[in-house]
Amino acid sequence: MAGTDHRLTREQEAAPAVVLIEPQLGENIGTAARAMANFSLHELRLVRPRDGWPNEHARKAASGADWIVENAKVYESATDAIADLTYVYATTARPRQMVKPVITPALAGEDMRVRSSRKERVGILFGRERFGLRNDEVALADTIVMAPVNPAFASLNIAQAVLLIGYEWYKLGGSTLGQATPQEPALSGPTIPTKGSRLAIKEELEGFFNHLKVELVDCGFLRPTAKVPSMMRNIRSIFLRANLTEQEVRTLRGMISGLTYTHTREKKSPKSQR
Amino acid sequence: MAGTDHRLTREQEAAPAVVLIEPQLGENIGTAARAMANFSLHELRLVRPRDGWPNEHARKAASGADWIVENAKVYESATDAIADLTYVYATTARPRQMVKPVITPALAGEDMRVRSSRKERVGILFGRERFGLRNDEVALADTIVMAPVNPAFASLNIAQAVLLIGYEWYKLGGSTLGQATPQEPALSGPTIPTKGSRLAIKEELEGFFNHLKVELVDCGFLRPTAKVPSMMRNIRSIFLRANLTEQEVRTLRGMISGLTYTHTREKKSPKSQR
Repeated sequence: MAGTDHRLTREQEAAPAVVLIEPQLGENIGTAARAMANFSLHELRLVRPRDGWPNEHARKAASGADWIVENAKVYESATDAIADLTYVYATTARPRQMVKPVITPALAGEDMRVRSSRKERVGILFGRERFGLRNDEVALADTIVMAPVNPAFASLNIAQAVLLIGYEWYKLGGSTLGQATPQEPALSGPTIPTKGSRLAIKEELEGFFNHLKVELVDCGFLRPTAKVPSMMRNIRSIFLRANLTEQEVRTLRGMISGLTYTHTREKKSPKSQR
Repeated sequence: MAGTDHRLTREQEAAPAVVLIEPQLGENIGTAARAMANFSLHELRLVRPRDGWPNEHARKAASGADWIVENAKVYESATDAIADLTYVYATTARPRQMVKPVITPALAGEDMRVRSSRKERVGILFGRERFGLRNDEVALADTIVMAPVNPAFASLNIAQAVLLIGYEWYKLGGSTLGQATPQEPALSGPTIPTKGSRLAIKEELEGFFNHLKVELVDCGFLRPTAKVPSMMRNIRSIFLRANLTEQEVRTLRGMISGLTYTHTREKKSPKSQR
């Protein structure tokens, strides 16, 4: 992290605040801070941490996300902790009998992005290790966030809950967070790094297919003649699906030359083994 | 968890396998299992766990996801661990110089859903605590998955990486999981008819790559020796991108045999022209 400036910038101030209600173990505060740091959440608020504050276990478990732990603010009540916020989400693992919107982390991520862009100050409440948020704490929130989990095994710890919300927030990040908006267009598929080479043009591919065909006919693989067109179509399919780069076409042609060159060499020195 | 039947059902068998490569701490294996359980992933595969197996720390850290730890299978190599799979993702925290698709966990979740619905057997590789996956392990995979994280603080542990992928898989759950079926994502693209053949499993692909490697070394194409691993990684990338069927693997092996067989024939009848 050397060289990283961890003072809150204006951008960071707009990120959601993470509010932990009565966290029991310092270690969990630390791992939550670490999860936050991965997704550019920097503002940690603690309501009555059981073992007091500061807490050395928290700092250790933060694994380098020290600035978050050091800048954490402590509050006497959930009400105090959210006093300056304009919109609050409550994370819960089980349904509550409240007439309140219930959304997924994905939708919460979008909603937080929109609100932040409007300069709203948002925060997310996370409950205690043992039993989460009390109903009166959930009642403080505008919206409930529930992650879809296996009903037969719903067991997210605090850091994991923070991780999922932070992830959903971060992945919608704009350019100010150092990454492009995640667009993955349906037609062109994922970006494949080409290691400096460009995609092969069809002329180069044709050269390769012709080279391959000549050698495959020559060695007797492509026969009888009547079947050559359909066999070559099948072979084409394989290589076209790979979206070859120009460099890869050259590699493949080199391989063909290598494999077929052998016999010339072998004829000269028949001792080499096959 | 009382009353939950943890034997693998057909639904569960279709879920992606989680493959941990040389995990160091038993505790991390356990927390990964716990993360899996939240998202209905049940199949854990371990390659050379440092502290042996079974591992009491793993069981304890699983916090109730015991059936996953107990059913975990141990393998001698990454190649062995993926031998029966048809499509493999490698999770990495940093870019690799390989011509291989790089996608987000979200897209991976969609892609896995589509492949599972087609009865493909998919798996995800996760690297060691200290330095992740080696390049030759990444090279085994069809696609790389990178989570969008704060470049100034990229620090996901194994369980968290498993959590994000599992979450993205689970949230697109089909009707049996109480949610809508996802639409065809960009990566897996339109269904490619396999002309009656099934997709090749990794063991068959390994057989092909070994065959090709032996011949390319033999003919002098792969040299010097020090460069063979990186050259083979590049060649792997080409063929992995093609998502070969079992029939196509046989075709390619037939082509190699044909191209290399020539000289034997030629030695017998040297009149044929080159």
